Amino acid sequence: MTVSEGAAYRPQPMPRPTVEPGELVVAAAHLDHGHIYGMIEGLLGAGATLGWVYDPDPAKVAAFVERFPQARVARSEAEILDDDAVRLVAGAAVTSERAPFGVRVMDAGKDYFTDKAPLVSLDQLDDVRAAVARTGRRYAVYYSERIHVEAAVLAGQLVERGAIGRVVQVMSMGPHRVGDPATRPDWFFERASYGGILCDIGSHNFEQILHYTGSRDAELVGSTIANYHHPDHPQLDDFGDAHVVTDNGATGYVRVDWLTPRGLGTWGDGRTFLLGTDGYIELRKYVNVATERSGGHVFLVDGDGEHHLRADGTVGFPFFGQLARDVLDRTETAMTQEHALKAAELSVRAQILARDLTPGPDRG
Amino acid sequence: MTVSEGAAYRPQPMPRPTVEPGELVVAAAHLDHGHIYGMIEGLLGAGATLGWVYDPDPAKVAAFVERFPQARVARSEAEILDDDAVRLVAGAAVTSERAPFGVRVMDAGKDYFTDKAPLVSLDQLDDVRAAVARTGRRYAVYYSERIHVEAAVLAGQLVERGAIGRVVQVMSMGPHRVGDPATRPDWFFERASYGGILCDIGSHNFEQILHYTGSRDAELVGSTIANYHHPDHPQLDDFGDAHVVTDNGATGYVRVDWLTPRGLGTWGDGRTFLLGTDGYIELRKYVNVATERSGGHVFLVDGDGEHHLRADGTVGFPFFGQLARDVLDRTETAMTQEHALKAAELSVRAQILARDLTPGPDRG
Repeated sequence: MTVSEGAAYRPQPMPRPTVEPGELVVAAAHLDHGHIYGMIEGLLGAGATLGWVYDPDPAKVAAFVERFPQARVARSEAEILDDDAVRLVAGAAVTSERAPFGVRVMDAGKDYFTDKAPLVSLDQLDDVRAAVARTGRRYAVYYSERIHVEAAVLAGQLVERGAIGRVVQVMSMGPHRVGDPATRPDWFFERASYGGILCDIGSHNFEQILHYTGSRDAELVGSTIANYHHPDHPQLDDFGDAHVVTDNGATGYVRVDWLTPRGLGTWGDGRTFLLGTDGYIELRKYVNVATERSGGHVFLVDGDGEHHLRADGTVGFPFFGQLARDVLDRTETAMTQEHALKAAELSVRAQILARDLTPGPDRG
Repeated sequence: MTVSEGAAYRPQPMPRPTVEPGELVVAAAHLDHGHIYGMIEGLLGAGATLGWVYDPDPAKVAAFVERFPQARVARSEAEILDDDAVRLVAGAAVTSERAPFGVRVMDAGKDYFTDKAPLVSLDQLDDVRAAVARTGRRYAVYYSERIHVEAAVLAGQLVERGAIGRVVQVMSMGPHRVGDPATRPDWFFERASYGGILCDIGSHNFEQILHYTGSRDAELVGSTIANYHHPDHPQLDDFGDAHVVTDNGATGYVRVDWLTPRGLGTWGDGRTFLLGTDGYIELRKYVNVATERSGGHVFLVDGDGEHHLRADGTVGFPFFGQLARDVLDRTETAMTQEHALKAAELSVRAQILARDLTPGPDRG
């Protein structure tokens, strides 16, 4: 077998900051999910200036300013929304609060960058689409498992240069670990708050299917959810899957769960398989199970051979620099608004349509 | 990470012959698919005696007797069916001929062992079920990708001893290589003969889903087929997938294709993922892509760690010895008749229900 590092598999240059110091002031507000740290790191890497932080919980604010001491602590959400210098507000609120907060941000004339899932219902989706149309502002989404994972970024570059021909199928597996339930906030276990597993975790996977197949929409063929192993938390879906057909005639399958066993060396053995007409790609994003503890593995098989590419440290995260420019230039290079919301729509629809396979009596 | 070879992961003893020389006489007839060699090897390993071989094509017979010189060459199918000494007839006919031949075998008072897919239509399924009931004979099926692959056998042993808890989901991927179309017989490209990809290759995968989830039936949620990359052979499905919910509340996803790129070191990177409530198993059956050319890899992650088990040479193929005893003892230890035909039924139904995603005009 060939383990090639040849020119055809060379990553594009590492991204550099795209905005000058002070050119793009951002704020962080609502720190309920730890993703806010990755979101802010990404924006800072793009050259953004962190102006403010706000959360009603002083402990969350204290932890945040320890990591980002340059952030001024706002006394209220309004203090941030009233500051004309702020162009983009990043938030990782409780999932069900992300859309209402985003609408407030956009109505204040600022762009919004939310953790995924960006919303939990079709009503929220309508509200967000209306706010985007009304305000002309952006509702950007941090689909971290593609935009903030170098293996996923490299895979996108390979697909774009035709390394595997036309992508006809994407299998996207998102296993996660619950860990000690006592360390999770209450809302993690409340369906109305986290939105259900296909909405919450699944939004990553629907986004990947749309992205890698190059499609604008998809039809849900079927989906299931279940609580197989967490009877103490009946509203937690610890499993979900969905099968879709994209508008350009490819298929996708999503499989997500909260069943990662204790013995795995990381939080989840996230995999993505891209089947092309001229080859295939497998991503082992966070671990090469029982082989290497580190992640970032791209396995590419094409007409020439079998290639094990190591993405980490090679491609970086172009999304953030593109988003920073999009805010200033009113372009859509990082991710289109339609794409970001279509992934959310599919996630919510998959959750609504899902057959519940939980054993025993109806969990309501 | 732990790469354990401890007692919990020790395979069961290697199977030994279960019948005495001369105790079970078998015959081979209709050699259209090369699987007949594996079927006969398996039976010989169980202690069976090879009595006859028949095929209308002398070249196929000549090749067969070169490998198995002990086989007497029959002048007709009837010569085998008329020999009372023969208890079991193995066949790998053109797929659409497997059921009619099997009914003739059973009506002659013998058990039948056919290559997969065992049948191509619901009418054939009815005929087979009626013949089984009428004759009391067996219609056994060579689902080679589980029963003749040590990684798959070891996975079954691990599941049986509870290594990953309850199996709640099975993903079964069966990529295959077409190779040079000129080396394939015409029937390979004729839908009415090979049955469609979900029937043909897919039967392996439906069988694995039923087996590993321990279910007796499953409901098809959706399925697709396509010819993405073989316009010269419009009746070839080079892709198929299907999503099922089993009668015990698990799910399964099948993905099969004829898109294996030239660069892969073997004919297909067959994978199976078993998701359990207490761990998971991944099979890399034929290659550890870009890592090891050999197959037989079982990756097990449980409460204790990540384990890379090597199945080849450790568990053998108990199916054949069990089948040999079943023929003599009229038991059902190798595989129940219901299970073998249910997998076939799901395959045929998935094919019938499949949405055709082939680009361009309807291929009929």
